[in-house]
Amino acid sequence: MKVSGIITLTTDFGIKDPYVGIMKGVILSINPNARIIDISHHIKAGSVLHAATSLVEAYHYFPKGTVHIAVVDPGVGSDRRPILVKAKNYLFVGPDNGLFWPIITTQEDIKIIHLTKTEYFLRDVSATFHGRDVFAPVAAHVSGGVDPLQMGPSIDDPVPLIQRSPQQTAESLCGEVIRVDHFGNLITNIHRKDLDQFLGKNRPVIRVGNQMIKGIHQTYGNAGPNELLALIGSSGFLEIAVNLGRASEQVSISSGGHTGMEIKVSKE
Amino acid sequence: MKVSGIITLTTDFGIKDPYVGIMKGVILSINPNARIIDISHHIKAGSVLHAATSLVEAYHYFPKGTVHIAVVDPGVGSDRRPILVKAKNYLFVGPDNGLFWPIITTQEDIKIIHLTKTEYFLRDVSATFHGRDVFAPVAAHVSGGVDPLQMGPSIDDPVPLIQRSPQQTAESLCGEVIRVDHFGNLITNIHRKDLDQFLGKNRPVIRVGNQMIKGIHQTYGNAGPNELLALIGSSGFLEIAVNLGRASEQVSISSGGHTGMEIKVSKE
Amino acid sequence: MKVSGIITLTTDFGIKDPYVGIMKGVILSINPNARIIDISHHIKAGSVLHAATSLVEAYHYFPKGTVHIAVVDPGVGSDRRPILVKAKNYLFVGPDNGLFWPIITTQEDIKIIHLTKTEYFLRDVSATFHGRDVFAPVAAHVSGGVDPLQMGPSIDDPVPLIQRSPQQTAESLCGEVIRVDHFGNLITNIHRKDLDQFLGKNRPVIRVGNQMIKGIHQTYGNAGPNELLALIGSSGFLEIAVNLGRASEQVSISSGGHTGMEIKVSKE
Repeated sequence: MKVSGIITLTTDFGIKDPYVGIMKGVILSINPNARIIDISHHIKAGSVLHAATSLVEAYHYFPKGTVHIAVVDPGVGSDRRPILVKAKNYLFVGPDNGLFWPIITTQEDIKIIHLTKTEYFLRDVSATFHGRDVFAPVAAHVSGGVDPLQMGPSIDDPVPLIQRSPQQTAESLCGEVIRVDHFGNLITNIHRKDLDQFLGKNRPVIRVGNQMIKGIHQTYGNAGPNELLALIGSSGFLEIAVNLGRASEQVSISSGGHTGMEIKVSKE
Repeated sequence: MKVSGIITLTTDFGIKDPYVGIMKGVILSINPNARIIDISHHIKAGSVLHAATSLVEAYHYFPKGTVHIAVVDPGVGSDRRPILVKAKNYLFVGPDNGLFWPIITTQEDIKIIHLTKTEYFLRDVSATFHGRDVFAPVAAHVSGGVDPLQMGPSIDDPVPLIQRSPQQTAESLCGEVIRVDHFGNLITNIHRKDLDQFLGKNRPVIRVGNQMIKGIHQTYGNAGPNELLALIGSSGFLEIAVNLGRASEQVSISSGGHTGMEIKVSKE
Repeated sequence: MKVSGIITLTTDFGIKDPYVGIMKGVILSINPNARIIDISHHIKAGSVLHAATSLVEAYHYFPKGTVHIAVVDPGVGSDRRPILVKAKNYLFVGPDNGLFWPIITTQEDIKIIHLTKTEYFLRDVSATFHGRDVFAPVAAHVSGGVDPLQMGPSIDDPVPLIQRSPQQTAESLCGEVIRVDHFGNLITNIHRKDLDQFLGKNRPVIRVGNQMIKGIHQTYGNAGPNELLALIGSSGFLEIAVNLGRASEQVSISSGGHTGMEIKVSKE
C-alpha cells in the first residue's frame, strides 16, 4: 500500500478545548506534508461503539493509503494496548478497545501491530492523552512512509466490540436505533439487505415507539410535511425521518427517540 | 478562469455526524490536491436563505477560481436539478433551489449548468445524500481542471430565492433581522447605502422590539458596558449589538431577538 | 526563523457564522500555500485569559516557524494596538490586550511589533472585524516570507494580562479552576512543580467545593466508576476528574464546578 499522506481524526474530544489542534500540531511537526481531515470530534464521550460505526461509515470514502486515527479511550493510561491495524487499503491507529473490530472482522489482509516502539512516540508520554503522545506521532510517521510493521510485534487477539445484530423471526425483524443524527433522523442497524431478505415481496410495517409507519419512501420529500417516514439512508441502513422536521422529536413524545430504542419491522 | 484548487463547503449538516468528513474523502479521492475550507456546517436546517446569505458574505474573500459547494437541500432525491453556476471569478455547485440566486442576479458572466453527466458523479447515487454523491465529486473534478461546461447543458431558468428587501417610505426604513450571530449580534438586511440614502444628514432613531437606539456607533467599545447600540457591521449591514453582552438577550426580554423580527429606522 | 507556512487560529468567533471561513479565504488569497489549523473557535466570548491559556497549552506542539493568530478582541476599533510578537521559534499575531503576555514573559528573544504598515492589511479596514482585515492578512504575508520586522515599529510596553497565581502558605496551596473541559474535567492553575514543592513527601488532601479528594491518581481508570479523583493532566496541571463521568457535575451539585472556583491542597 502506498500512503496517501492523508490522516483523518475521529475522537470524543469536542472542539472547545485545544486538544484536537494539539494533535494536528504534533502530526505536522513530524510530517509537515500531512493533510488532516476531521471525521468527527463529537463522538459520544467514551462510546467506542459510536466511534466504530462512524468510522465504518466514513473510512472507505478516503483515498487508498489514508491513515485513520480514532481516539475514544476510556482506558488511557491503563494496560490497554495501543495498536495499528493495517487493512488492504487503509491504516488505522488508536487504542485496542474494540474501535477497529468492525474493520478487523470484515476487511481482507488484516495485520494488527501492538505499538511498542517508543521511538515513534513523543518523548514524554502522559497517562491521559495518548492521542497527542502516541497515536498522532505514530500516524504521522506512517503517513510519511515509515513501515507500520516496524512499530511493534503482530498480535492476533484484539479486543472485540460487542454489537447487537438485528434479530429475525418468521413474523418480525427487530433492530435498534444506533444514532440520532444532526437532522433528528433515527439511523438503525437494519441493513437494506436484511430488510429485503425478510420482506421478500411484502410491504413493511415499521413500529418505533408508539408510532407505526407503512412502506418505505425513496427520499424525505416523498412524504408530506411533518410526516414520519421510513427510508433506506445513504449508507444502506433503515432510517426513520420526518420531512422538514425532526423524527427524534416526533418519536420521543411518547417513547424517547434515542440510541438503543427498538425498531420492529413486520409484514403488512 | 483558472481554478485555485480550493473548495469551500457550506451546509446544514452539523459536525457531529461523519457526513462532512465523507464529502471531504470523496473530494480527495478524485482530486488529491484539493484544499478544502469549511465556511459553515451550522446553517439552519433546510434554510436556503440562511445558506445563501452566508455564502454571499464569504465567497468573494477566497482566491479567484475557488469552487464553492453549498448543500441545503430539502428537495434531495426529488426532481430538483443539481447545478453548477459559473461566475466571472468563482464556481458554485449545489441544488437548484435558490441557494445561488443572489450570485446569479448580481454577478457578471453567469453560466448555469444542469449537472447531467453522471460520469462525474459517484457510481451509485443515493436519493438522500447528493452532497456526497453528486456535488462533492463534481466540485472535485472541476477543481482539478475539468471544464465545467462539459458537465451538462446550460439552463436559464434557475429557481429564484424569495428575499424581502427593506421597505422605505418618507418617514421610515423598515428591515428585518436576518441572522443572530455567535456573539448575539442581530444582523439586519439594511445596508449602509440604504441607510445613508434614507437618512441624508439626519441622525437615525432605530426601533427593535420595544427598545430604541439613537445614532450609529463606530464600534462595540464606543458604548457603555451592556448598552444596546447600532453600528454598521463588517459586511456593510446595520447591526444591533451590546458592548460586552448579547443583544439577542436584551432585545428578547420583551420581544424575541430572532431572525425575521422587524427593525424600523426613522429620523430624529 | 524559517517560516513553516502553517497558520493557526484561536478565536471566540464560534463556527456557526462565516467569520472563520472568511479569515481563511483572506489568508489563502494572500498566501495560496498557507496551511491553516484551528486551535479553537470556542474561546469564551471576550475572555482574553481563556484564549491566552489555550494558546500557551497548544502553540509549542506546532512546527517551528508557525504563525499563531489569536483574536479575542473586545477593544476592536478602539485605540488598542494590533501587534505581532516574534519569539525564538514562533510568531503571534493579534490585538495588544494581554493575549500574548504569557508568551512575552516566558519566551526568549521576544520582539513586539506594532502593526502600522497598512499595505499589509486589507484595503478597507472595518471597525469591527480586524481578524479579517488586519490579523489574517498580516499573518498570511508573514507566513509567506515577508519580514515581520517590516510591519511596523518595535514596542516594549505591551498590555499585561492579569493572572492569579496559586497562593502557598505552610498549611495550604490554593489555586483555582481555569477551564472546565469537554469531558467535564476541572483544569486548575496548580502546576505539578508547585504541588511537588509544597507537598514534599506528604500525600495531598484536595478540597474543591464541599468535596474532598485524597491522593493523586495516575489516570482516569485508576478510580472506581463515577468516583471523583485528582490527577496531573496532560499539560502538567492538577486536574479534577471523574472516571467515566463529569467532575463538573459532581462538584457543581453543591458548589458550582465553574471557572474561578477555589481548589485548596493541604497535607494529609
